[in-house]
Amino acid sequence: MHAEIPLAKAMRISVESYDGSTLTLCAPLEPNINHKKTAFGGSIYSILVLSGWGLLWIKIRENNLHCSVVITKSETAFPKPVDGELNAICKIDPEKTDQLFEKFKRNGKAKIGLTSEIYSGGFLAATFKGTYALLTRK
Amino acid sequence: MHAEIPLAKAMRISVESYDGSTLTLCAPLEPNINHKKTAFGGSIYSILVLSGWGLLWIKIRENNLHCSVVITKSETAFPKPVDGELNAICKIDPEKTDQLFEKFKRNGKAKIGLTSEIYSGGFLAATFKGTYALLTRK
Repeated sequence: MHAEIPLAKAMRISVESYDGSTLTLCAPLEPNINHKKTAFGGSIYSILVLSGWGLLWIKIRENNLHCSVVITKSETAFPKPVDGELNAICKIDPEKTDQLFEKFKRNGKAKIGLTSEIYSGGFLAATFKGTYALLTRK
Repeated sequence: MHAEIPLAKAMRISVESYDGSTLTLCAPLEPNINHKKTAFGGSIYSILVLSGWGLLWIKIRENNLHCSVVITKSETAFPKPVDGELNAICKIDPEKTDQLFEKFKRNGKAKIGLTSEIYSGGFLAATFKGTYALLTRK
């Protein structure tokens, strides 16, 4: 991720955990701060979109598929400010993964909706609903 | 923007133009590239949200108001990849600005929806509908 997306490196994003269905990414506040000393909306969006993208990237490799993943649309809400480390969590259902990959094998493309979240100080601070497209790698 | 939001500096965002109602921000592709050699979705989002935020920031100062601006929710779509410089355009209607500031003066807070766009190679590449909140500065 750092090699191919320089902004992920500038944000100092790293993998906190992965258990086969849930990926958690984290990043320190400092490079992602804004004028209010909380996390910048663009940083929040970036770590959220990468939690879904990264989770699909892992599942694709686990299943030995050759495809690329792009975001096509998203809805984001920021109910609370993030005033510490950023932790973005994305979970995928095994059944949904199987359906996605079957569709991709059949059609050479497929779409999936994934939800990612950030909690800060025990409260839900940001929610993200993203639609990702799997495309045949050129 | 660079002083308060380090990610805007990492993205090398600058102001391309401002004519009193339209703000255009630009950024080179290189620090904002992704695994497909087009602009990273998080960079696209960041420059889009900052075009609206920056435009409100300017209008607030032009009107000698003391308030801060935060993004509360957004919808983003990526109909085409951005394969060159990023240019995000946001326009505000003077009448809408007057209504926003009157509401803020009356209530100490106000919300506005703004649309920002990115064109790439003559095609609409990204659209952004953001809701921004004006809050009394603490």
